[in-house]
Amino acid sequence: MGEAKMPYSLNSKAVAQATKAWLHTRGVRVEEIAELVMLLQRKYYPSLTMEECVHNVEMVLSKREVQNAVLTGIQLDVMAEEGKLFPPLQDMIENDEGLYGVDEILAFSIVNVYGSIGFTNYGYVDKLKPGVLERLNDKSTGEVHTFLDDIVGAVAAAASSRIAHRKQAEREQDLGLPHQPEELEAASAPKADGTGKEPLE
Amino acid sequence: MGEAKMPYSLNSKAVAQATKAWLHTRGVRVEEIAELVMLLQRKYYPSLTMEECVHNVEMVLSKREVQNAVLTGIQLDVMAEEGKLFPPLQDMIENDEGLYGVDEILAFSIVNVYGSIGFTNYGYVDKLKPGVLERLNDKSTGEVHTFLDDIVGAVAAAASSRIAHRKQAEREQDLGLPHQPEELEAASAPKADGTGKEPLE
Amino acid sequence: MGEAKMPYSLNSKAVAQATKAWLHTRGVRVEEIAELVMLLQRKYYPSLTMEECVHNVEMVLSKREVQNAVLTGIQLDVMAEEGKLFPPLQDMIENDEGLYGVDEILAFSIVNVYGSIGFTNYGYVDKLKPGVLERLNDKSTGEVHTFLDDIVGAVAAAASSRIAHRKQAEREQDLGLPHQPEELEAASAPKADGTGKEPLE
Amino acid sequence: MGEAKMPYSLNSKAVAQATKAWLHTRGVRVEEIAELVMLLQRKYYPSLTMEECVHNVEMVLSKREVQNAVLTGIQLDVMAEEGKLFPPLQDMIENDEGLYGVDEILAFSIVNVYGSIGFTNYGYVDKLKPGVLERLNDKSTGEVHTFLDDIVGAVAAAASSRIAHRKQAEREQDLGLPHQPEELEAASAPKADGTGKEPLE
Repeated sequence: MGEAKMPYSLNSKAVAQATKAWLHTRGVRVEEIAELVMLLQRKYYPSLTMEECVHNVEMVLSKREVQNAVLTGIQLDVMAEEGKLFPPLQDMIENDEGLYGVDEILAFSIVNVYGSIGFTNYGYVDKLKPGVLERLNDKSTGEVHTFLDDIVGAVAAAASSRIAHRKQAEREQDLGLPHQPEELEAASAPKADGTGKEPLE
Repeated sequence: MGEAKMPYSLNSKAVAQATKAWLHTRGVRVEEIAELVMLLQRKYYPSLTMEECVHNVEMVLSKREVQNAVLTGIQLDVMAEEGKLFPPLQDMIENDEGLYGVDEILAFSIVNVYGSIGFTNYGYVDKLKPGVLERLNDKSTGEVHTFLDDIVGAVAAAASSRIAHRKQAEREQDLGLPHQPEELEAASAPKADGTGKEPLE
Repeated sequence: MGEAKMPYSLNSKAVAQATKAWLHTRGVRVEEIAELVMLLQRKYYPSLTMEECVHNVEMVLSKREVQNAVLTGIQLDVMAEEGKLFPPLQDMIENDEGLYGVDEILAFSIVNVYGSIGFTNYGYVDKLKPGVLERLNDKSTGEVHTFLDDIVGAVAAAASSRIAHRKQAEREQDLGLPHQPEELEAASAPKADGTGKEPLE
Repeated sequence: MGEAKMPYSLNSKAVAQATKAWLHTRGVRVEEIAELVMLLQRKYYPSLTMEECVHNVEMVLSKREVQNAVLTGIQLDVMAEEGKLFPPLQDMIENDEGLYGVDEILAFSIVNVYGSIGFTNYGYVDKLKPGVLERLNDKSTGEVHTFLDDIVGAVAAAASSRIAHRKQAEREQDLGLPHQPEELEAASAPKADGTGKEPLE
């Protein structure tokens, strides 16, 4: 509102960077999410590598819908940790109240990005709480991760869905079947390096 | 369209009865769904009885949204079993294609009836496939239960959510805290026996 | 964690009261939401009264899932108004960024409580922004209602769905058809006044 | 199961083609859906062309999640038209029963593909029923489009969301800001012309 204030304009890169930075600040590494993906998918794709899992987690985290959910969830966790929320909301989030389901709702908006096939994987890891999820659920630390633990499970579930879609595309490509139109479009987009050249040449 | 045709009017009782009848016809007993609920909830409520689980499953099945999803899903299973669907849809449903997610979508509309806290339970039972779910997933029978197995897991998850909400209400009632308004309203509704006494006064 | 700290236990009444209080503090009256309901429903039910609309809005607001969404959304609005959110989240919520969809996600968890039939009504009022929604969307006030305007539309949509379900139940009751089991159960619940007597006698 | 039966394998191209063919058979042209998109978006993007709208509708229709919902919905419409559904389901779908919400549920799985920002647009067109939606809702024809009319509105809403995301990407690109990672990946995918050059290197 001051004289020098720039008019607002969405900066997608800043949102993406903040997402990455806040995950790091809250102690979650991409590799840990990738380990959840590996746990969920290795029985379906025995040759799946950790590198692929990491890559797919990064692709999920590059989606705007996912970034918005991650930032909003971590924001609420942090405010709860600092004791700054309205009284009954503070209590519910601080204590990871079982009947408070907004964390699951945000998690679901993440899973949904790659379609309904990820619902099952989300529920499964959220129930078993392997690896990083166990640590995020440790209530003895004074940290609050009511949203983040669901979000991390959801990102892993979404990455698993993404792998399933991609593996099918690879299989069909091996059989000589054509690409999906959306990939064709993306493939013919202007080059990211700004040279404006046709890609892949 | 015939001369004697009655104008359409929704008959909720017929929908409820058809839901019950079709579940039975497709080989699913309420007790089997209740066993899934017991599996999901006994560690939280050690004194939970099978009778309560059965009751909560029946309450879930009495909801219109649930009945619509159950009937629609079973309808698609039956048509797939009879080979009557459009070619690619027939193949996907008959083979429980992993990248076909409409079954999960219907399941989710069931879980949602009691809120987002049931998402996790649904994913968990759908992944582990205990009890009746294992039987519904047996691909060697020639039967098609692509929708029904997800629906059964979803009904169990919804019943689990319902129990969680009710147990909290009981706890607060024991502490002398008041009921929720919606229950008060229902409690003062006209009597079900048709005597019509004390209507909303 | 201090010596005198009571162990946490969910207090549903406190959550319900905070919901009501915060709606009031943020300038939204139940009657204004009821006016949206009237706008949406009067063409289907010409004899619908404002009293009924108010009652149905109150019933929606008595649901735990709804209260959690309302409190969480208002909390984020308030923090944005005070400039206390993380940089890119602050900008997006403060400016009601069109590509930030977490407000719609929370709104949807409210609509969902009475099933998918409310989706359309929500979208409609959110687009037209009649009555109270126009005021909440006035960007010249310095107030932030990015979440609240969607939440208010969602509560109105949910109340509309509730009316549709109830009107059908009334119609069937007039025809001598039986109640839904869930209502029967509620009707036979212990009396709210704690006397433990059978209700309705 | 016969001797000569090929083992099942998902054929994504066949699913995509069936989607296109069934939309055509049921009387819906891509251009008509594009007109809904134009109606929804022209006030935000005055220079938007019909060509862009058509393109974005086609991109939405190229998504697997969308194709599955379209095929399943049309299948149920067709079976209802032929009178082949179970008694109470037949009545509800044939008469587009207002309290039957599975059509909205399928529609929502389509809108969701491009995130929650499309919820509003879906509700809006579904309520106003402009253009093709009015025709699909004409109950005097003997045709049943209970699912298809919601699906068409949902595809238009999803295409609108897609445009909003793309326009933002264009704006940021004009400012010299970088692409989203997912687009970069797609851009470096094997060439669609089958030459297989520069695969993922």
